[in-house]
Amino acid sequence: MIFLLGGSGYIGQAFQRHFIRHGIAHRAIRRAELDYSDPARLLAALRAERPRFLINASGYTGKPNVDACELHRAECLFGNAVLPARIAEACASAGVPWGNLSSGCIYQGAKPDGSGFTELDPPNFSFHNGPCSFYSGTKALGEEILAGYPDVYQWRIRIPFDHLDNPRNYLTKILRYARLLEARNSLTHLVDFVPAALAFASLRPAPGLYNFTNPGAVTTREVAALLAAAGLRREPFRFFVDESDFMREAAVAPRSKCVLDSSKLLSAGISLPPVQEALHTALANWIPAPLPSS
Amino acid sequence: MIFLLGGSGYIGQAFQRHFIRHGIAHRAIRRAELDYSDPARLLAALRAERPRFLINASGYTGKPNVDACELHRAECLFGNAVLPARIAEACASAGVPWGNLSSGCIYQGAKPDGSGFTELDPPNFSFHNGPCSFYSGTKALGEEILAGYPDVYQWRIRIPFDHLDNPRNYLTKILRYARLLEARNSLTHLVDFVPAALAFASLRPAPGLYNFTNPGAVTTREVAALLAAAGLRREPFRFFVDESDFMREAAVAPRSKCVLDSSKLLSAGISLPPVQEALHTALANWIPAPLPSS
Repeated sequence: MIFLLGGSGYIGQAFQRHFIRHGIAHRAIRRAELDYSDPARLLAALRAERPRFLINASGYTGKPNVDACELHRAECLFGNAVLPARIAEACASAGVPWGNLSSGCIYQGAKPDGSGFTELDPPNFSFHNGPCSFYSGTKALGEEILAGYPDVYQWRIRIPFDHLDNPRNYLTKILRYARLLEARNSLTHLVDFVPAALAFASLRPAPGLYNFTNPGAVTTREVAALLAAAGLRREPFRFFVDESDFMREAAVAPRSKCVLDSSKLLSAGISLPPVQEALHTALANWIPAPLPSS
Repeated sequence: MIFLLGGSGYIGQAFQRHFIRHGIAHRAIRRAELDYSDPARLLAALRAERPRFLINASGYTGKPNVDACELHRAECLFGNAVLPARIAEACASAGVPWGNLSSGCIYQGAKPDGSGFTELDPPNFSFHNGPCSFYSGTKALGEEILAGYPDVYQWRIRIPFDHLDNPRNYLTKILRYARLLEARNSLTHLVDFVPAALAFASLRPAPGLYNFTNPGAVTTREVAALLAAAGLRREPFRFFVDESDFMREAAVAPRSKCVLDSSKLLSAGISLPPVQEALHTALANWIPAPLPSS
């Protein structure tokens, strides 16, 4: 049986759909029912129910976007650094291996030759190595803290998307934003990520950091072109002139734009399709959200 | 009436002694009685009892020393950054001015000319500008978060001491440590700090950061010589050869050693005696702790 924390979020829902579709025994714990931010309570539940694995998909990402983290700093720091550390304490005491949803947004750019950052590259969009957004700072700090615990996988996903129209889905964001910022990014297709993350529970590769993106990178313009080609948007996409235009007009916190190298994941025996293929799959299966009633 | 959080700690006890001796109306809140880490509960208490000021003397400093913060990172980060931010939220909502116990340990060294760091100098022993201890990183992050809130005083004390023999008292530490590390530091005499901090509640200078040390600085050897001259120790003091000897033999985390400029405090109308005078006062009034029964 697998424990899932944060099951109501965008990533947590993807896990729940997969569990249900494949009949995987699980318990999605709501904090109202069991306050898993209290290590003693979580430990008692782990000892009583003995899950074979735990997934923490909770965290504070900010709504409607990461700028909200600049305002809600206590909540952001708690959700992204303190809470994972408390879960780590409980899991270490109970001897339960687990995976934490980390983020590739602790990097900015790519290596000088254009290739992606590996797990050996220290984050360069963090409190230690800034500037950074407050969100990214807390995620990098959370990683640093978890590095001191045994048997935890830190899964760095990056700009998640899938075929389900949703305000947290990158493809929905590209469709709906009034203007776009051109950037080159690695992305994570949730339909690929979820079963691959669960494979960690059975394959049990070495604990630690894993960049968890589909191989390769795409630019915002390439994604916009795919959406247009799929007939999902008729009006032309509008772009900010540049980063400073974007910061002036639309943002509070600087944004991470980065390329990750996911070859460690492949070495662990877990293979994801290239990002272009993943995008085509998501668009081929696209399910629009019902129109809001007015 | 004044709310005091963290009243059972070394600094909190100094406030409580002062409140009692001078008949100052106060409420020292224990978390077991009112969980002030829950902003809603703290806000309700603030609205019900309408204190004119709040002092947060809680925090996580590590026992027996700061190295414990490297191990208990969740607790340290929560106590020094998340909790102050939650208190800030509640105080901002209730319109209650307050003071938070910050620390000068977010600096290392002195300015090139030997003078102390002012409140305008960014911390140089922090996550942003490391290396640092985890403790110092969390204190600097706490300061950064609180900077976004109105009507909060951030009091940076540094190596507190007074006349009461106590494991948290710098003078006791110097007396009891097997070996000492030579360094030049600014210090805070609690007997001067407590009434001066309370003066903030009545004088109400501009909110923000205040270096709260006695003017000047002393070296460890100077303090040791004062203790020997006061007849408090007969055996000679032993010193580490240097910082790397200390790190190799006795420490996990690097230590802050620093000089602070407290002239902003003076400009606010609050005057503390020079550190040498404060040390003489404490030693003249020294009360040894009862010997532990064996």
